[in-house]
Amino acid sequence: MTDHEKVKVSELIKQSLIEDLGDGDHTSLSTIPKNALGKVKLIAKDIGIVAGVEVAKMVFLQVDNSLEVKVFINDGSAIKPGDLIMNIKGKSRSLLSAERTALNFIQRMSGIATYTNKIHGKIADLNTKLLDTRKTTPCNRIVEKLAVRMGGGTNHRFGLYDMIMIKDNHVDFAGGIVNAIESTNNYLNEHGKNLKIEIEVRNFDELNEVLTHGGVDRIMLDNFTPEQLKEAINLIDGRYETEASGGITIDTIRSYALTGVDFISVGALTHQISSLDLSLLTL
Amino acid sequence: MTDHEKVKVSELIKQSLIEDLGDGDHTSLSTIPKNALGKVKLIAKDIGIVAGVEVAKMVFLQVDNSLEVKVFINDGSAIKPGDLIMNIKGKSRSLLSAERTALNFIQRMSGIATYTNKIHGKIADLNTKLLDTRKTTPCNRIVEKLAVRMGGGTNHRFGLYDMIMIKDNHVDFAGGIVNAIESTNNYLNEHGKNLKIEIEVRNFDELNEVLTHGGVDRIMLDNFTPEQLKEAINLIDGRYETEASGGITIDTIRSYALTGVDFISVGALTHQISSLDLSLLTL
Amino acid sequence: MTDHEKVKVSELIKQSLIEDLGDGDHTSLSTIPKNALGKVKLIAKDIGIVAGVEVAKMVFLQVDNSLEVKVFINDGSAIKPGDLIMNIKGKSRSLLSAERTALNFIQRMSGIATYTNKIHGKIADLNTKLLDTRKTTPCNRIVEKLAVRMGGGTNHRFGLYDMIMIKDNHVDFAGGIVNAIESTNNYLNEHGKNLKIEIEVRNFDELNEVLTHGGVDRIMLDNFTPEQLKEAINLIDGRYETEASGGITIDTIRSYALTGVDFISVGALTHQISSLDLSLLTL
Amino acid sequence: MTDHEKVKVSELIKQSLIEDLGDGDHTSLSTIPKNALGKVKLIAKDIGIVAGVEVAKMVFLQVDNSLEVKVFINDGSAIKPGDLIMNIKGKSRSLLSAERTALNFIQRMSGIATYTNKIHGKIADLNTKLLDTRKTTPCNRIVEKLAVRMGGGTNHRFGLYDMIMIKDNHVDFAGGIVNAIESTNNYLNEHGKNLKIEIEVRNFDELNEVLTHGGVDRIMLDNFTPEQLKEAINLIDGRYETEASGGITIDTIRSYALTGVDFISVGALTHQISSLDLSLLTL
Amino acid sequence: MTDHEKVKVSELIKQSLIEDLGDGDHTSLSTIPKNALGKVKLIAKDIGIVAGVEVAKMVFLQVDNSLEVKVFINDGSAIKPGDLIMNIKGKSRSLLSAERTALNFIQRMSGIATYTNKIHGKIADLNTKLLDTRKTTPCNRIVEKLAVRMGGGTNHRFGLYDMIMIKDNHVDFAGGIVNAIESTNNYLNEHGKNLKIEIEVRNFDELNEVLTHGGVDRIMLDNFTPEQLKEAINLIDGRYETEASGGITIDTIRSYALTGVDFISVGALTHQISSLDLSLLTL
Amino acid sequence: MTDHEKVKVSELIKQSLIEDLGDGDHTSLSTIPKNALGKVKLIAKDIGIVAGVEVAKMVFLQVDNSLEVKVFINDGSAIKPGDLIMNIKGKSRSLLSAERTALNFIQRMSGIATYTNKIHGKIADLNTKLLDTRKTTPCNRIVEKLAVRMGGGTNHRFGLYDMIMIKDNHVDFAGGIVNAIESTNNYLNEHGKNLKIEIEVRNFDELNEVLTHGGVDRIMLDNFTPEQLKEAINLIDGRYETEASGGITIDTIRSYALTGVDFISVGALTHQISSLDLSLLTL
Repeated sequence: MTDHEKVKVSELIKQSLIEDLGDGDHTSLSTIPKNALGKVKLIAKDIGIVAGVEVAKMVFLQVDNSLEVKVFINDGSAIKPGDLIMNIKGKSRSLLSAERTALNFIQRMSGIATYTNKIHGKIADLNTKLLDTRKTTPCNRIVEKLAVRMGGGTNHRFGLYDMIMIKDNHVDFAGGIVNAIESTNNYLNEHGKNLKIEIEVRNFDELNEVLTHGGVDRIMLDNFTPEQLKEAINLIDGRYETEASGGITIDTIRSYALTGVDFISVGALTHQISSLDLSLLTL
Repeated sequence: MTDHEKVKVSELIKQSLIEDLGDGDHTSLSTIPKNALGKVKLIAKDIGIVAGVEVAKMVFLQVDNSLEVKVFINDGSAIKPGDLIMNIKGKSRSLLSAERTALNFIQRMSGIATYTNKIHGKIADLNTKLLDTRKTTPCNRIVEKLAVRMGGGTNHRFGLYDMIMIKDNHVDFAGGIVNAIESTNNYLNEHGKNLKIEIEVRNFDELNEVLTHGGVDRIMLDNFTPEQLKEAINLIDGRYETEASGGITIDTIRSYALTGVDFISVGALTHQISSLDLSLLTL
Repeated sequence: MTDHEKVKVSELIKQSLIEDLGDGDHTSLSTIPKNALGKVKLIAKDIGIVAGVEVAKMVFLQVDNSLEVKVFINDGSAIKPGDLIMNIKGKSRSLLSAERTALNFIQRMSGIATYTNKIHGKIADLNTKLLDTRKTTPCNRIVEKLAVRMGGGTNHRFGLYDMIMIKDNHVDFAGGIVNAIESTNNYLNEHGKNLKIEIEVRNFDELNEVLTHGGVDRIMLDNFTPEQLKEAINLIDGRYETEASGGITIDTIRSYALTGVDFISVGALTHQISSLDLSLLTL
Repeated sequence: MTDHEKVKVSELIKQSLIEDLGDGDHTSLSTIPKNALGKVKLIAKDIGIVAGVEVAKMVFLQVDNSLEVKVFINDGSAIKPGDLIMNIKGKSRSLLSAERTALNFIQRMSGIATYTNKIHGKIADLNTKLLDTRKTTPCNRIVEKLAVRMGGGTNHRFGLYDMIMIKDNHVDFAGGIVNAIESTNNYLNEHGKNLKIEIEVRNFDELNEVLTHGGVDRIMLDNFTPEQLKEAINLIDGRYETEASGGITIDTIRSYALTGVDFISVGALTHQISSLDLSLLTL
Repeated sequence: MTDHEKVKVSELIKQSLIEDLGDGDHTSLSTIPKNALGKVKLIAKDIGIVAGVEVAKMVFLQVDNSLEVKVFINDGSAIKPGDLIMNIKGKSRSLLSAERTALNFIQRMSGIATYTNKIHGKIADLNTKLLDTRKTTPCNRIVEKLAVRMGGGTNHRFGLYDMIMIKDNHVDFAGGIVNAIESTNNYLNEHGKNLKIEIEVRNFDELNEVLTHGGVDRIMLDNFTPEQLKEAINLIDGRYETEASGGITIDTIRSYALTGVDFISVGALTHQISSLDLSLLTL
Repeated sequence: MTDHEKVKVSELIKQSLIEDLGDGDHTSLSTIPKNALGKVKLIAKDIGIVAGVEVAKMVFLQVDNSLEVKVFINDGSAIKPGDLIMNIKGKSRSLLSAERTALNFIQRMSGIATYTNKIHGKIADLNTKLLDTRKTTPCNRIVEKLAVRMGGGTNHRFGLYDMIMIKDNHVDFAGGIVNAIESTNNYLNEHGKNLKIEIEVRNFDELNEVLTHGGVDRIMLDNFTPEQLKEAINLIDGRYETEASGGITIDTIRSYALTGVDFISVGALTHQISSLDLSLLTL
């Protein structure tokens, strides 16, 4: 996690705690003495990849920075049922106020990391990188993209603002591929912006037009079969980065990666989120 | 959606748009003329329950309130591939800025509503209500709970603040069940708060202690088998609302509901989120 | 349903009622007063596409045309658990005599329509039509083919009599492709019949022979891969209708349809019939 | 197959052939010489239980009783891919006219027998019999019930006419359980009919009322859990036949059968029909 | 089973009995009279292919050759729940000492034969043979390879010693494909060994080098797509046997076999062993 | 692994190497120079629990004790794709001779450990121990039972010789439960053997007879439902160890363990062996 990412995560945690706590955890306030102390353990209950340990730690400390958090297993590690991931000691009221929010983060993040890891495992011995997409849960993109990295994936652009992605709509409005690329380069120059340019092509005609004109950093080959992709990569011949997308699944990803494509983006990484089973036990 | 919920959803949309747009959709800004107009259609691509139509509409209007949104299928309806859910007309730049965020909301909400609906379908002819839990995605609880309702479920408490839920930890700290209930009632009186009180019991000893003492609104029977639940409900005999929880699945829920329990809470409603396949087509 | 189809369905219903009723529903005759009145509701219990509403209505009216049938959801609509599809009022004896037969029709038809709809959903945005086959349940072809249409599919020929389909056996007996096509055309002329002619080819040699000779309306390309199909369609170049068949599944159909083939026939539409869960509740 | 069943099957085959053939198989008529001879083999393509061999043989002979049919594997046998089930020799036109109808029968029947056999295998070492229901395909009840027997199941009543089944509706109209049983017995006496009487009970109150009054042959215990069923069977104590029904699946059937119940009826036997893969090869 | 195989199986059985019996079955020795007699039946409990009948018979006779074993269903047959496979009569102590070992053999072998049969069923009408690999359970290769044959498969080489298989490592150490083939042929001549030579190629360059040089019996085409395999087989043009390998599954095997390749090897035949459910009942 | 176990494993490895090597790896002998050196890495390709690292190391050293083996991940650890488990350096001929046998051990053992771990994870927080059975692969019981331990399970008796297990057959021959227990105790005394005695009961009558008489160490409760098991454990009241068995699966094990039973035995641990995907890469 970079410092910049930490700031984003921290803000997201703040909003999540407000969401759950409202004007107070009245059950704990009424039954638990103010200074009562306790300890909880975070235990794995399934096989998978843990992700969100650092985020969960931030949740506890944001609720009460006097809590003592001890981490035993780091983000990105394989875990099995019974593994002790972290324990937290301190005021019982604080522990109870933080626990659901912490679990909601770490279970979803671990689910994403585990799934990413399974898909990535199919191509881990090859040079192709596995990319995520913008198909993330509202306001959770920062943690979902972190989880993808912890599972072995690579992040694509974060949002609409940090990379150019020219799709067919843009091409149509700009009046053709050549115009679209030129407009984009002009815009970036005018605004003093230094963003990578990726353009999507859907057939060999479009690809050839891009190759003739140039002016981009990466070409996305959308809905190509592995055979077509192989042919396209031969044509591109290393002049631009390449990315495959469109309906690629865990069963088919290897045949795409064997073509030598640089990147494969898979929306399902953050589109089918099964939380990994973890539990917080009070001691 | 109540007015209060609309405010929460509106704030969540605002944050989500900031997340995706940052300092601007530079691709559209550079390729699409400012006043270019367009139209998109939201089309179903799978069988399921649609949820998030109103939310998606709010996303489009929040990006640009000059967009014209026409809704053809309302939240909570069954949809099939090819069904036209809504269309939106107006500035192309606005459409492209809103589309991913709108889809991210509606696809997740429809996934939750569809899954809720399948589980609810198992008990729809009985009187038992299907409840969600607090196992929601950070900052998305408002939309996930709306989706549960659109799928036929019923919302449990929103957070830690709007209902009392006395669990074993609280009982231990308070020095027994009786003390816990009394502390809670005292606290609520002192603070002039009018919250429902639910208490969790895990066996017949605890249940009998609650029944002897009274002072609660609902009893959660945790990890009871259907046979034990039936016996417990006979003992309770209508004096308190009853709720079953603990590992109840789509395959077993009917046997629990047949006991006559008032509520069954199922964490999986918001814990295993498979987005429903929808697409936005540009015309 | 055309008038001609209605006649066929009506005859099938008649035989089905004889099958179930024999010399009478002795249970109802002995326990239910002759003029007792009642009402039943047909309720959906699963998500899917309803088909057979009109057929079920015909069943009730054929048993007793004094029954009042009110339809709320039409054939081909998406339904969800709890949806009220139709209700029927009148003599209780009549309701009980008709209910199992009506359910047997509508549950199977809805199962077929739902499955057809799922497969069709994969290609609904393309121009390719999804065809059924003659792999239907004996005597139920009329209702199974109606259900396919209600699910978004298109009917292939009804039986051996309403279209010519020249397969390899026919070719062998006729002494080659050219002879087979000529014999067929001669036969149709002699008998004054105006039937479409389709011929099956299994490789490019056979295809070229057909293309050279002509004299057919549609070419069925059997067991071609998507790549081979693409090449064949280029060769055919719009001169004849094209149909792909042979082991095409829900997972692979899109790659076939993307070749631009006119029709894809899928035996599984009527070969794997899981009844959709519906129930008739007595009020 | 009894003689009576053979008559019913024969009539069904006749209608099915009319359905497929209409005014003639014009393709064969135009391309295949009248006296051309051929031979086809029916081959298994999957592991399962074959059912419908005798029915398929009847189809071929009904089309042309000069065909020579040789059967190698009998109904009810386990088959594996490659097994030769039967071969048929004679006029090619006859073979082609019969083949689809024969396959449509034998594939569905084998699917039902295979599924029945899997469920029956769970209780084959116990005394409980596995029953089918009236949830059959219109006009196909005779062949579907034969297939159930070939798979190891036992047939329940054929239709509304050959057994009395008193359900809650009948009880309500008759004015209570006692009245319903008495009306039925009176009716049967008056009409000189000798039908078995089964009555459905849904709880112990209803069961006790039946036990006190008597006058039935079999008691259906609907939606009882295995524990409740055990208790009910103890109460009935061998005085009446017992039948369990209601949502019993392949996963749960053994726990019901272990109670010692005489019969278990499972609608799914004929409700989820996946045709078994068989093929007719022309030699 | 050849005589040579019988010797191997016999030795494996001997070791397995030592493993289970150690210094004696003390439970039977202490409770069952020395000369007590009994009888057990081996019954199928699932649908599948039985394999290991002869092996199980050898187990019983090796424990006590006075036992009488009667076999009703032979290795390689399809079985269904309830089928009586064999029965065994004689001293009860002997029966109890042999039963677990006999079941451990026959259940695993039947599991392998059933799975092999399912895969083989996909290509049974084609000329391609389905091969096993050396991915077998330690010391059980002889029985696992027998089971593959009983399921319709064909055995590949037994171990490292009975066939030459030149892989990339060998090629690298030998200094190229040509050198590797020549070294092998020289070695075989020098040592007077007559072993088949197979060489693995992973692309068309390697294939062409092999084709130019010759000197092998079979070419293994590793990780070729069906399209590439087709092209390779055209190039090889019948001069050498051909084998496809690498990630081929039950879903994809047919597309490989349709290329006309001579052999397809599938590690999963002996890699995913689900025992088939059989039971020994004491009478 | 105890020393005693190491001896058994070592002998099994010896036989496995003979099985694979026969009179030599002629491919390596003919192509790889005698003193050529190499290095291989064992890499995980799936998520799971690794088991067999020490066994694989023994395989390599038994082939050539001059090989250098370096272990990075120990038996029983969770692994994920890409994890480096061990590497081995030394003579290339030795590496190639050992690799398939080493993989065959570690892949099966890891498969068992992973599956055991998943089941054990359901009850890991309870006191009940998960036991294996004698349903193991012939001659592989030692490694399969080691794998069960590495996955979190506990070993039951190894064979017929190291514990008494009185089943119904023994009871019948001995003339009743009391006689069977007494015969066993007498036998053990006479032979100076100190073995634990376990007796199987199948209902409460048998249980009560055992409880009245005593003389055993553990009672196996076969095919009890969780409710019956709970009642039985109350009756036994800590006087004897308790074990549940009979059709208990991953889905139902928790309901059994919640009764407080000491042990649950699950045959499937070693009955459904899916090898875990690992690979040996040559550097």
